[in-house]
Amino acid sequence: MTDLRPPDIVRSAYAELIVTDLGASKHFWVDRLGFVISSEEPDAVYLRGHEEFIHHSLILRKGDVPACSRFAFRVRTPEDLDAAALFHTERGCEVRRYPAGATRAVGPTVRVQDPFGFVVEYFHEIEWIGHHHQHYDQRHGASINRLDHINLVTDDVQALYEWYMALGFGLSETIEDDDGTLYATWMFRKQTVHDIASTQGSSPQLHHLAFSVPESHHILGLADTLGACNEYHHIERGPGRHGVSNAFYLYLRDPDGHRVEVYTTDYFTGDPGHQPLRWSVNDQRRRDFWANPIVPRWYEEASRVLDIDGNVQPLRKRGSDEQRITVGADGLGVTR
Amino acid sequence: MTDLRPPDIVRSAYAELIVTDLGASKHFWVDRLGFVISSEEPDAVYLRGHEEFIHHSLILRKGDVPACSRFAFRVRTPEDLDAAALFHTERGCEVRRYPAGATRAVGPTVRVQDPFGFVVEYFHEIEWIGHHHQHYDQRHGASINRLDHINLVTDDVQALYEWYMALGFGLSETIEDDDGTLYATWMFRKQTVHDIASTQGSSPQLHHLAFSVPESHHILGLADTLGACNEYHHIERGPGRHGVSNAFYLYLRDPDGHRVEVYTTDYFTGDPGHQPLRWSVNDQRRRDFWANPIVPRWYEEASRVLDIDGNVQPLRKRGSDEQRITVGADGLGVTR
Amino acid sequence: MTDLRPPDIVRSAYAELIVTDLGASKHFWVDRLGFVISSEEPDAVYLRGHEEFIHHSLILRKGDVPACSRFAFRVRTPEDLDAAALFHTERGCEVRRYPAGATRAVGPTVRVQDPFGFVVEYFHEIEWIGHHHQHYDQRHGASINRLDHINLVTDDVQALYEWYMALGFGLSETIEDDDGTLYATWMFRKQTVHDIASTQGSSPQLHHLAFSVPESHHILGLADTLGACNEYHHIERGPGRHGVSNAFYLYLRDPDGHRVEVYTTDYFTGDPGHQPLRWSVNDQRRRDFWANPIVPRWYEEASRVLDIDGNVQPLRKRGSDEQRITVGADGLGVTR
Amino acid sequence: MTDLRPPDIVRSAYAELIVTDLGASKHFWVDRLGFVISSEEPDAVYLRGHEEFIHHSLILRKGDVPACSRFAFRVRTPEDLDAAALFHTERGCEVRRYPAGATRAVGPTVRVQDPFGFVVEYFHEIEWIGHHHQHYDQRHGASINRLDHINLVTDDVQALYEWYMALGFGLSETIEDDDGTLYATWMFRKQTVHDIASTQGSSPQLHHLAFSVPESHHILGLADTLGACNEYHHIERGPGRHGVSNAFYLYLRDPDGHRVEVYTTDYFTGDPGHQPLRWSVNDQRRRDFWANPIVPRWYEEASRVLDIDGNVQPLRKRGSDEQRITVGADGLGVTR
Repeated sequence: MTDLRPPDIVRSAYAELIVTDLGASKHFWVDRLGFVISSEEPDAVYLRGHEEFIHHSLILRKGDVPACSRFAFRVRTPEDLDAAALFHTERGCEVRRYPAGATRAVGPTVRVQDPFGFVVEYFHEIEWIGHHHQHYDQRHGASINRLDHINLVTDDVQALYEWYMALGFGLSETIEDDDGTLYATWMFRKQTVHDIASTQGSSPQLHHLAFSVPESHHILGLADTLGACNEYHHIERGPGRHGVSNAFYLYLRDPDGHRVEVYTTDYFTGDPGHQPLRWSVNDQRRRDFWANPIVPRWYEEASRVLDIDGNVQPLRKRGSDEQRITVGADGLGVTR
Repeated sequence: MTDLRPPDIVRSAYAELIVTDLGASKHFWVDRLGFVISSEEPDAVYLRGHEEFIHHSLILRKGDVPACSRFAFRVRTPEDLDAAALFHTERGCEVRRYPAGATRAVGPTVRVQDPFGFVVEYFHEIEWIGHHHQHYDQRHGASINRLDHINLVTDDVQALYEWYMALGFGLSETIEDDDGTLYATWMFRKQTVHDIASTQGSSPQLHHLAFSVPESHHILGLADTLGACNEYHHIERGPGRHGVSNAFYLYLRDPDGHRVEVYTTDYFTGDPGHQPLRWSVNDQRRRDFWANPIVPRWYEEASRVLDIDGNVQPLRKRGSDEQRITVGADGLGVTR
Repeated sequence: MTDLRPPDIVRSAYAELIVTDLGASKHFWVDRLGFVISSEEPDAVYLRGHEEFIHHSLILRKGDVPACSRFAFRVRTPEDLDAAALFHTERGCEVRRYPAGATRAVGPTVRVQDPFGFVVEYFHEIEWIGHHHQHYDQRHGASINRLDHINLVTDDVQALYEWYMALGFGLSETIEDDDGTLYATWMFRKQTVHDIASTQGSSPQLHHLAFSVPESHHILGLADTLGACNEYHHIERGPGRHGVSNAFYLYLRDPDGHRVEVYTTDYFTGDPGHQPLRWSVNDQRRRDFWANPIVPRWYEEASRVLDIDGNVQPLRKRGSDEQRITVGADGLGVTR
Repeated sequence: MTDLRPPDIVRSAYAELIVTDLGASKHFWVDRLGFVISSEEPDAVYLRGHEEFIHHSLILRKGDVPACSRFAFRVRTPEDLDAAALFHTERGCEVRRYPAGATRAVGPTVRVQDPFGFVVEYFHEIEWIGHHHQHYDQRHGASINRLDHINLVTDDVQALYEWYMALGFGLSETIEDDDGTLYATWMFRKQTVHDIASTQGSSPQLHHLAFSVPESHHILGLADTLGACNEYHHIERGPGRHGVSNAFYLYLRDPDGHRVEVYTTDYFTGDPGHQPLRWSVNDQRRRDFWANPIVPRWYEEASRVLDIDGNVQPLRKRGSDEQRITVGADGLGVTR
């Protein structure tokens, strides 16, 4: 009955964002953030960080409406593609298979639409780029190393958590209340704090993509550069230290409003029996360890998501209970 | 007529804060911020940073009402004390002379109350402590190096600016509008951006004391420690990069609400003919180079000031025009 | 035939060092480096880093002769202990089983002596300590996070490489010549550059234990503290950037001469098909990316190793070919 | 008798280096170190750091023989040029006056050859460039801020010390023995540890020029870039922490062998009565606070110096007594 096992997901590997002005997006992601261009097409740019040895971790594709069209999990073996297809078929999801090259530089893929409305692409093969991580002369911006995780907005944090547990993820941290109601979760396959996280709100939406950088000063340096260039409007929240994950962070919005986190130094979660760290929704340090206030739009705004046919999905409206509860805690205008 | 020259002020050298709970204050300034204790008395503690070779840069004195009782300028020669006395006497200020030891470890002083309501102590001699700056094993908190500057709240920024120009200060930076109205000024005697700065508001008040630390990571480390100890409520604003002065900063409030800035890397201003950098009050980067919003209380709250007889001075009420103008710029709740 | 699979090793988890003066060792490892004490016994101290959620990563045990008595691999399941026993029995190794508690806070263990002379302890269970990584107020020294890897000296780098490949390790980097002769290898189970590395020389010896710290400034801070305390003789090599692994490093020698590396920011190796990076033994940047000279004793000295009965093992003498080849490259007294 | 006062020197302001290949030099100083080009001529390039508001701090001039042709002190007033001329004339030095523009962007100058063989240019006026220090997008390499000091090699440290004391310098630190013999001195006019330092050896030579950068990670980043570009041979010594001055440093050699130090965080020396810190020549931490060994060529090699007529000056041969004494201390091949 090995067929019933979930696919052996290695990690979150890439995402595709629909952007309305490819030139403006390249300026932001490449010139400012410091991504490396792997390939360009008339309507798309394939980007990677300096410690990614594969073709891309981010595809920017020209379109009319800003959105996230899909994100991708790498699986351990080619057979895990079958496991992924079966896992989703049995759960009533739309599942489609694509041949090698349907996504540039990537082998055969299984594309599914999950019950939450997210299009997920499973793949095993991808072009190996080689070791370029020590080209320090080519690093700039925030010295982007690699895609770390993907944060999803959902109106049902509990259900999304259960879904990813069924897919074999580990749980590293939560925000919850005394009744055990989950407000947000952090879940991992690779040995870090997360590959997938969830935030409560109108669904389905992409909250942000997060990329790992070497040290905190690289994040400060990016903010300085955006200030110098009068492009500070891209900065949304931070820099700060997360309570959850313990990482040092800065949130930015790209020219289409897609949120990106640059991020450094979370911790190892690879031990068997690793226990989750559960934060109270009333702990003011959970979202910012220094209890700095969170700008409301960080809770309220996110990127729309395309369905498997490429249509913008409608939102199931829901506000953030966490945000309501914490007015008086980290809501703006109340503290500080 | 050399008597008419202003005193040759070397730099801002120390300040005295009245605190209501000396134990709580010591915990904050010594255990958390990382000051070194030079001397203790039943009702006072004398503190210094690791790169201060003299007895103290901060006196915490027990009292009933939190306030700043005075701040001090070191002058180049003993004769400059006479120049200081004459300068203020001629301008109608109350001037008092004290013998050596009236302020612990300090030689004879001239204490004046300036037209803005601030009590300023001039001194030349102070006990030399020696070179302790390389005791890295004793550094902790933010690794405080030295008092850098003192920021005053005044209802007449223009007059305070002219006063300090008459005292021989240089002007390094301003915030002003197109009509040349000054909203804030930064003025120096030592070869840095400032010894004295002014912020507009109800007068007289002390806005903050600022202490220099080695590198930005020391500031992040202090914030992390305050988070870890559940003492994050001391953090008021930042960390961030100032537009003005270019320094990396964090503002804290001590147990009595006195504001302290920890601060690193401003620039050399010692060249003859050094020109001021004039920021428009409409430049969103002037107060935070990344245009992060300023918490309103940073503009609105400050420390009361004692008069030369030790009484709390009444406030001449005035709101901050800068804050009003920039609602919509860096005011909270509007941007971000 | 699943019995023939190697044990599923999660990572290098702890090591035991024999030290001759427990007080001196505690001073070095705890007061200076910044380890946390989990437990103490009259003849032993159990230490961990701030991001280790288990009981210990280092045991310091009082003895007459400085040595490494064993190091330990954590395995994924209890059944992997059987796999470990079988793997080594079939290869003619001495294998011994111990009940829970034989190593404090650790479940049942399988202890083996491998063909190279190293005593390796396999375990699955160990006491969970919980999440203490955000106690920033308790961090000092180099802010030690976790054991990262163990570096072994062997007279047969090729054989040791093959042994670990049979145990299921991945190969991340090598130093080799044009003929494919291996001079050093870096091998991993967790998703970093290494759990085990080898250096060529007289065998068997422990070259060093390496512990991960958050950022490079923590390493500089440790060196500053050792200078301040007149304990700089513990510093052996660095700080510097490794060519191999890309990490920022500092090597120290403890009071018994055991070498320890503090280390930050290597890269993710968890992708399927991750390819090794092969450095030429003639590339002067392989050991120090800035080509700073390597002190000879870094090649020449290491810790003796106990056999499974606790006796100091004799050395099979062999100099380092790598060191000979690179006189003229990074040998001292030749360049720079 | 105010005429007998020494000139009021503000600081060390610029130096001119003769280089044999202007393109190679520009690559090193601009592309790698991160200097800004103020002006170019067919045979010269004028460079400055990001926090220098004046035209240049370094002139690279094409010539046949690598050398330092002169260095310059800025004086407080135009009248100080007369004082400089008189000071040197009275002491039997060759003194020449040049009109504005003789050095590009600089007003009238007084050029002297001092008794030690160094050509020193005094000036007051220089072109003001304005505030460009926050152009973070243009910073790269080590993010050079400003010229900090000039280190001279002399066969008579005592005499050179006395000369600069007569010129009104303060003494911040020394290396000396129990008999008071000086091996090296650090002397300042601006409120930092030094404008001029001396090292013992064959005379006259320029030991190095030192430039201040914001933080230690900028220095590590420069080393990483030089490694990445296979230009690591420019790195001579460090990175490390100085005992003397407490600064974090890296020494490099430019394409002609001119030594440059990049340097951060020394301390304030502007207080009246600032006392010197006297290091024993036997304190292994004086040159490197971590007692890392000093490469011999750092003591033995330096840049030749031109006389006031532009001829390369002969060397008065003398080895470094400090280096001899400290074989066994920080000499290579002995420790570590």
